[in-house]
Amino acid sequence: MSKIRVSLLGSTGMVGQKMVRLLENHPYIELAKVSASPNNTGKRYIDAVRWVENSEIPEYVSDMNLVSSDPNDHRDVDFVLSALPSEIAEGIETRLVSNGINVISNASPLRMRSDIPLINPEINYEHLYMLEDRDTKYVKNPNCTTTIMSMPLFDIINSDYERMYLTTMQAVSGAGFSGLPYMAINNNIIPYINGEEEKIPAEISKIFGYRNDDKIVNRNIKMSVTTVRVPVAVDHAGVLYINIKNFDIENFIKDIRNFKPLSRFSGLTMAPRQPIIIHEKNDAPQVHDVSGMEIHIGRLSYNDDTLRMYILGDNLIRGAAGITILTLELMHAMKLDN
Amino acid sequence: MSKIRVSLLGSTGMVGQKMVRLLENHPYIELAKVSASPNNTGKRYIDAVRWVENSEIPEYVSDMNLVSSDPNDHRDVDFVLSALPSEIAEGIETRLVSNGINVISNASPLRMRSDIPLINPEINYEHLYMLEDRDTKYVKNPNCTTTIMSMPLFDIINSDYERMYLTTMQAVSGAGFSGLPYMAINNNIIPYINGEEEKIPAEISKIFGYRNDDKIVNRNIKMSVTTVRVPVAVDHAGVLYINIKNFDIENFIKDIRNFKPLSRFSGLTMAPRQPIIIHEKNDAPQVHDVSGMEIHIGRLSYNDDTLRMYILGDNLIRGAAGITILTLELMHAMKLDN
Amino acid sequence: MSKIRVSLLGSTGMVGQKMVRLLENHPYIELAKVSASPNNTGKRYIDAVRWVENSEIPEYVSDMNLVSSDPNDHRDVDFVLSALPSEIAEGIETRLVSNGINVISNASPLRMRSDIPLINPEINYEHLYMLEDRDTKYVKNPNCTTTIMSMPLFDIINSDYERMYLTTMQAVSGAGFSGLPYMAINNNIIPYINGEEEKIPAEISKIFGYRNDDKIVNRNIKMSVTTVRVPVAVDHAGVLYINIKNFDIENFIKDIRNFKPLSRFSGLTMAPRQPIIIHEKNDAPQVHDVSGMEIHIGRLSYNDDTLRMYILGDNLIRGAAGITILTLELMHAMKLDN
Amino acid sequence: MSKIRVSLLGSTGMVGQKMVRLLENHPYIELAKVSASPNNTGKRYIDAVRWVENSEIPEYVSDMNLVSSDPNDHRDVDFVLSALPSEIAEGIETRLVSNGINVISNASPLRMRSDIPLINPEINYEHLYMLEDRDTKYVKNPNCTTTIMSMPLFDIINSDYERMYLTTMQAVSGAGFSGLPYMAINNNIIPYINGEEEKIPAEISKIFGYRNDDKIVNRNIKMSVTTVRVPVAVDHAGVLYINIKNFDIENFIKDIRNFKPLSRFSGLTMAPRQPIIIHEKNDAPQVHDVSGMEIHIGRLSYNDDTLRMYILGDNLIRGAAGITILTLELMHAMKLDN
Repeated sequence: MSKIRVSLLGSTGMVGQKMVRLLENHPYIELAKVSASPNNTGKRYIDAVRWVENSEIPEYVSDMNLVSSDPNDHRDVDFVLSALPSEIAEGIETRLVSNGINVISNASPLRMRSDIPLINPEINYEHLYMLEDRDTKYVKNPNCTTTIMSMPLFDIINSDYERMYLTTMQAVSGAGFSGLPYMAINNNIIPYINGEEEKIPAEISKIFGYRNDDKIVNRNIKMSVTTVRVPVAVDHAGVLYINIKNFDIENFIKDIRNFKPLSRFSGLTMAPRQPIIIHEKNDAPQVHDVSGMEIHIGRLSYNDDTLRMYILGDNLIRGAAGITILTLELMHAMKLDN
Repeated sequence: MSKIRVSLLGSTGMVGQKMVRLLENHPYIELAKVSASPNNTGKRYIDAVRWVENSEIPEYVSDMNLVSSDPNDHRDVDFVLSALPSEIAEGIETRLVSNGINVISNASPLRMRSDIPLINPEINYEHLYMLEDRDTKYVKNPNCTTTIMSMPLFDIINSDYERMYLTTMQAVSGAGFSGLPYMAINNNIIPYINGEEEKIPAEISKIFGYRNDDKIVNRNIKMSVTTVRVPVAVDHAGVLYINIKNFDIENFIKDIRNFKPLSRFSGLTMAPRQPIIIHEKNDAPQVHDVSGMEIHIGRLSYNDDTLRMYILGDNLIRGAAGITILTLELMHAMKLDN
Repeated sequence: MSKIRVSLLGSTGMVGQKMVRLLENHPYIELAKVSASPNNTGKRYIDAVRWVENSEIPEYVSDMNLVSSDPNDHRDVDFVLSALPSEIAEGIETRLVSNGINVISNASPLRMRSDIPLINPEINYEHLYMLEDRDTKYVKNPNCTTTIMSMPLFDIINSDYERMYLTTMQAVSGAGFSGLPYMAINNNIIPYINGEEEKIPAEISKIFGYRNDDKIVNRNIKMSVTTVRVPVAVDHAGVLYINIKNFDIENFIKDIRNFKPLSRFSGLTMAPRQPIIIHEKNDAPQVHDVSGMEIHIGRLSYNDDTLRMYILGDNLIRGAAGITILTLELMHAMKLDN
Repeated sequence: MSKIRVSLLGSTGMVGQKMVRLLENHPYIELAKVSASPNNTGKRYIDAVRWVENSEIPEYVSDMNLVSSDPNDHRDVDFVLSALPSEIAEGIETRLVSNGINVISNASPLRMRSDIPLINPEINYEHLYMLEDRDTKYVKNPNCTTTIMSMPLFDIINSDYERMYLTTMQAVSGAGFSGLPYMAINNNIIPYINGEEEKIPAEISKIFGYRNDDKIVNRNIKMSVTTVRVPVAVDHAGVLYINIKNFDIENFIKDIRNFKPLSRFSGLTMAPRQPIIIHEKNDAPQVHDVSGMEIHIGRLSYNDDTLRMYILGDNLIRGAAGITILTLELMHAMKLDN
């Protein structure tokens, strides 16, 4: 069987580097092309990248010459994966799509357009079926925080909760490699992340939305969100309170332990065996517990009509690079990749 | 006028050092004696302390010889201030009190005893009047987080709120100088602080309690609390959601700006001119905004029946060393110091 | 006596803010004007600055309107203090000087010009006398690291040493507030600081140089320098080895203790009583020992013809903001300010 | 072929955990037993360990019951690997050895005993031959800093250098997981590490020593060492100056590139293909360049009779856990394992 050939936009960024590493030795996806900003086109990857992953640059990519983001440079791949900065993503991606090139994108523009599926795989892979009859597939992945925080909601969203109150504590890498000066965040907390507090409930509304033919109809969500930056390199955390009556927490724990919606598919190398891991120790989960695509929850309690949990996940892998690859693997398993 | 002579228990610890510095050049309080653990008794302060304040050891204290915690070593002072570790505080403090020595203490034991006032000065200085007829005064200050987070509640606690949901992000210094290894908290978040989640609502119940003769009757509080440790040296932060209907946020802002309950007293050197400062910029307040005894709030919003605010304060000054000194100043101004 | 009126270029930067704070309440220097980048001209200081000092913006400056760097905006002050970024400093400063306006500058351009004194006050204040007959005074202060590391050399530079080997460990603030992303330096060491390794020996050559009428003749220096960035917010450190025979270390210690070259002048508010403080404890000095203008040395030893010491100082105060003010104070004391 | 069965002392510590992970799936070494402090004997590994490695506890070890350090618990293994704390290592290890049990140890006691080889594999694996006729093998590995800093000296130690001047910048993990409080080292530099400055030159003297039958005769080393703790989690760095005349730096680079002394052996899974990697970019190497057993050097220059280099390596893998395993692999390859 021939491999799925992909090209990668934004390949020299922090999320791009993560994808490069995750695609090394992939059994059926071949990273065939890497692209970066125009001034780097033509350069070897190794000469253009400021590699920050904690490993050597994979050999398979180091000598590749960077291509542009022009559709002509991507006609011979099966999918374009986009880790583009949001400022430039919309123009480039829509141009590729209008040229008949399939795109799976991490970038924020157009995430809320009702005819583009916004996929957090375990939650709403079924939305991908709306692409079945389309010649060109354009798929979005959610914001990194949304991806992580939405996971344990699968079992709550349909219940009769009053309201959710979420406080996130987000890693500095979420702002990009150069997003925050050391002097600005070291020993400091910044109680605001631009745009984030609107994105999270909006994207959750769509992820848990209903498919209506070719469109997603967002679900109504009652959620207050405060997003806070803390001096941690990687992993986004959140404390979620849910005002809900007569909640059966034992059943919730059981549902989470049984939550393996992707187990019906095979070949998903990026799918965690256990998407959500529950920790019982009071001081868990912590950063060293996180290995990649799985979400961790701890501090689970229910009293005074209040369900409380602490949620932790890797913002670069689960929140960005890994979820895009998992989405492609899923589309392959669902036979939506051609 | 002669000065109020005080001795300081736990003078070599992080909070003790802060008090030593705050009492330097105090107009009417004289730090006359310093005490530390038994193995240091007799040593000069400068030889026993591992000074970590960002300034030199004040000259006035450096050559003092450390005394024991025995009542006999404290009979000639007007007040003992206690910054003792909680494990040993109860025995030492009650022995002093039963020997007729006045004690104002930061340590956690006995904070909830109904006949001992638990004072966060701006909130409940009137509780101090219950000491009027007592020969020996024993006063407690709240937990550092309680002190900070309770401040903006003065205007809410009497209203018809449904429930409060608090997530704190607490500084490492709150665990004491040696409380957390670098390897444990650097680039990490620990979603639990032992004992803290019970203390905060309990102490708030008492601070806002009613005085009934010689006792405080706790008020009922509806509050869920999650306390989280983040890699920040100083300052505790919190995100507070309050489920409340028909809340007049403009009035709340006005009330906070007018909130100067201690302005009726003079000579309170530790009382901040403005106890609560409201920030309007989205990304404020931050650590560099905090100068000592004042509390900062930001991210103030009210919608969907949800009042939201971010609260920030200095856990070592407002939360501990400064509040104890302010309590003594207040007792002096209220003529409860003899 | 009327005050010395100064204006401050680069007043909204990190070093500029430090100067604003140091000049608050100065007995005889009045910060009369503040200047910042052209797009901020006309704005109030408080509206243009992103204040990061750990205190409130001093009231005296918050409502000042920012002026341009044009000479016409500075004709009515006695001195311009420059905390300009090096990229733009040369043009602006020389234009001021050629318009007859006195300038004392922290910026790196022209530091090595033989007719401009490069002043580290305790070391070479006498170089200032070369300005005696000039109508317009133009003075430079050294690089922050040079300022700190050169201090203990006063007693070595004339001796018969073979070579000095310096390894610096420099704080992130030395690169400016936004100089280094958190992701780049957190838990990392960067073994290079652009331009720094050339500046340090060159500037030391000039600071310890000889005055020949109107010019400074650099002294020959035998020094190898490696400059390293470490994840520390403030304070530059260095380990200095000196290959030197028959060195009398007891005498060196005595010389350092007696080193008070500025004591002949009065009114120097920025001059530390003891410019160099020797620490005898093995693990000292540390960051909390540093209070401002003084330099700390520790780990002093001499064996195998090797003098070794650890040097620590505040890169923002001693290394930049404070030294410029001290230079002005000195010029005033030396009657070179008119 | 049956595997080499080993037991691991100190298996729950930070270095022990690293060994547990490195031995997972080892082709011919089987971690058969784990041991920890007496109060944990009998417990399952997973219940006793506070796992801090950034991965899950390997399944193969999680259910093992911890054994004591008594010789009777280790008679059925081929080798005991020791990651014991230095305070207790000597007694336990010598008791094992006197009971005929082979020990390879990371702990510091007895490292300098002339009849015990002190092995940094690439440098002096030949010292292992002194064990040939011994029934029981007892081998030590050097201090983590020595291990790293000694590597590039292989090509210098025989030359006619005058003196070496080393300044190390050492990671916090080198002090053990709980070795340094966050409040003590965050944003701070501690210019001293107890015992370290004596160990480094002493151990280098022995590593590069001569074998004389059953003993190692230390080589004379002219080296001044200053060891400094910096707020970095993992990796020790150093700046090394060497006063040396007529040094051929091009040849040195060539020698380093050809330095593959272990290539004559096969099956060394822990041996890096290239033991020393030279970086040419000014700002390299950095922490993210380090993948495990290899040493990185940068900032290489030679002028004014001064050879200068920056040295960086992983203190936990190269400096401790990995080198012990590599030593065992080597002994196996050299047929010294029975």
